[in-house]
Amino acid sequence: MTATPNRRVVLAERPKGVPEPRHFRVEELDPVPPRDGEVLVRVSHWSVDPAMRGWVNDVPNYLPPVAIGAVMRSFAVGEVVESRHPGFAPGEVVTGMLGWQRMATVPGEAIDRKVAESDLPPSLALGILGLNGVTAYLGLTTVADPQPGETVVVSTAAGAVGSAVGQIARALGCRAVGIAGGPEKVALCREAYGYDAALDYKAGGLDAGLAAACPDGVDVYFDNTCGPISDRVMGHLAQNARVVICGTAAITDWDPLPQGPRVHRQLLVKRARMQGFLAFDHKDRYAETIDRLAGWVRDGTLTWREHVLDGAEAARDAIGMLYRGENTGKLIVAVD
Amino acid sequence: MTATPNRRVVLAERPKGVPEPRHFRVEELDPVPPRDGEVLVRVSHWSVDPAMRGWVNDVPNYLPPVAIGAVMRSFAVGEVVESRHPGFAPGEVVTGMLGWQRMATVPGEAIDRKVAESDLPPSLALGILGLNGVTAYLGLTTVADPQPGETVVVSTAAGAVGSAVGQIARALGCRAVGIAGGPEKVALCREAYGYDAALDYKAGGLDAGLAAACPDGVDVYFDNTCGPISDRVMGHLAQNARVVICGTAAITDWDPLPQGPRVHRQLLVKRARMQGFLAFDHKDRYAETIDRLAGWVRDGTLTWREHVLDGAEAARDAIGMLYRGENTGKLIVAVD
Repeated sequence: MTATPNRRVVLAERPKGVPEPRHFRVEELDPVPPRDGEVLVRVSHWSVDPAMRGWVNDVPNYLPPVAIGAVMRSFAVGEVVESRHPGFAPGEVVTGMLGWQRMATVPGEAIDRKVAESDLPPSLALGILGLNGVTAYLGLTTVADPQPGETVVVSTAAGAVGSAVGQIARALGCRAVGIAGGPEKVALCREAYGYDAALDYKAGGLDAGLAAACPDGVDVYFDNTCGPISDRVMGHLAQNARVVICGTAAITDWDPLPQGPRVHRQLLVKRARMQGFLAFDHKDRYAETIDRLAGWVRDGTLTWREHVLDGAEAARDAIGMLYRGENTGKLIVAVD
Repeated sequence: MTATPNRRVVLAERPKGVPEPRHFRVEELDPVPPRDGEVLVRVSHWSVDPAMRGWVNDVPNYLPPVAIGAVMRSFAVGEVVESRHPGFAPGEVVTGMLGWQRMATVPGEAIDRKVAESDLPPSLALGILGLNGVTAYLGLTTVADPQPGETVVVSTAAGAVGSAVGQIARALGCRAVGIAGGPEKVALCREAYGYDAALDYKAGGLDAGLAAACPDGVDVYFDNTCGPISDRVMGHLAQNARVVICGTAAITDWDPLPQGPRVHRQLLVKRARMQGFLAFDHKDRYAETIDRLAGWVRDGTLTWREHVLDGAEAARDAIGMLYRGENTGKLIVAVD
């Protein structure tokens, strides 16, 4: 048993669109002693992911919305301090849906995996060796199946998922073209993540940039935006192109559906395919995927950036930061 | 050699959107004697297909636009009257890109196939045993791969392609739900084509109708419209739904791209797929497909309707009729 209070962030009010600090409240409670089948985890890092916007909005989604007054749903990583589940023992590092809280009492089923890469920082389990890396690898390989020599365009190219997609595409023998906002992120794309070309959508001239960077068209478009950037890329598809719909960072409100250029004829003329991808559907492939990604981290094929916020109060604006594009690298919160 | 003049329909002026009678001109010339490798065909029926709108517009397409003054590109069927190609002999019935002309002198490569079903009317080679049937069968099976028990929704459900899709879906063990305009077409869907349910989009209440007809959602949507009907169906997709983009009947002008509700989040949440299909990519499968379809025609599994226009003057407004939805069944022109 521990005396450490459970400092946590709860949903105070339901936002419409991107949540703001006022929609969250920080509170401290006694930790809940685990019952049979549960474990108590001392959480070290919380994840901040674009999907969290959807989890707090009351619109049809792949998970029910977070209830008012409930702890914010989130991936997190930490160390088991007490276990009443036969599969877990104190001292093991675990990751899963632990929520934005310091002392997480959860059923064993909430834990996705034990973090076996003890040679690597545990926070990687929230990024390149977590949902971000898995989403990048499985979204790219299962939906798009890129072939060596093909051109893969990535939006939010310097982000946690995008930067992994670009590097994985190159590891698979493709040309990678990144789209990011501002000179700093574009430099990251070129210098840290090794994109063959990187385009700054804020600088204008995206169409000309795409035409120059993709002279044979776009074979694969890994999209995390679903807004005006996508609309431009759709005009450059190659025949039999595959568009992976992975995230919707450019759209803050889907109710009612926002208007945009119809994609149908571009898909028809190019015999192209547009497909939604959710990593959660592929849990049976997480372990092999993380093993492969960890190998690439160790041999230097994959690099990453972390943007670390300090504690619960800072977490209240974290989703907003993500949607304003203020983070450079995977956004995480170091738990206070 | 024949003395029959070549009465033909040429493109007189380039339309923007759907061509009108004034964009075409009827003229008569002497037939062109075939050279080595060519055949002369006495054409009996011309096809009228939605894709012909795209062929006369000067926008990026899968074929170059028809030139001003050139004979209108079209599928047609007829009998070889003179052959200087070793693969064809007088008296054989052939189909292919013969154009809107009575006496077609074409290279052997313009002929898609010899019509072997001498027990069936030759005009079927332009519809259920031609591009329409092949598009329906291959679009449905290669892109959507429908499984028994799944719900297949079809737009332009009483049309030449749509009516085949609905019947093939049922032959493959699916539930078929048709969407058509007006009570006459809806009755055709129910009575002639055997849809499990048919909805009249002109009567309003399409959302409620779809919800009632597809209680478990839409597994496959075979779309020939790409407009407001599609926007409604997209709100009813089941998880892992497949949307076949086959035709764009609801949109008369794609330059600039028309606006519509963004489909990205619906695809993401449902892990759904939207894919363009062109039958021309699958020519290696035409023969086996037509054999299968002909078997279904003979055993009564597949039925069809023809709407026959009389001669070249009537052809000038035929594409317009198609886009105004005035035809019931496959629109063809009996050559005068």
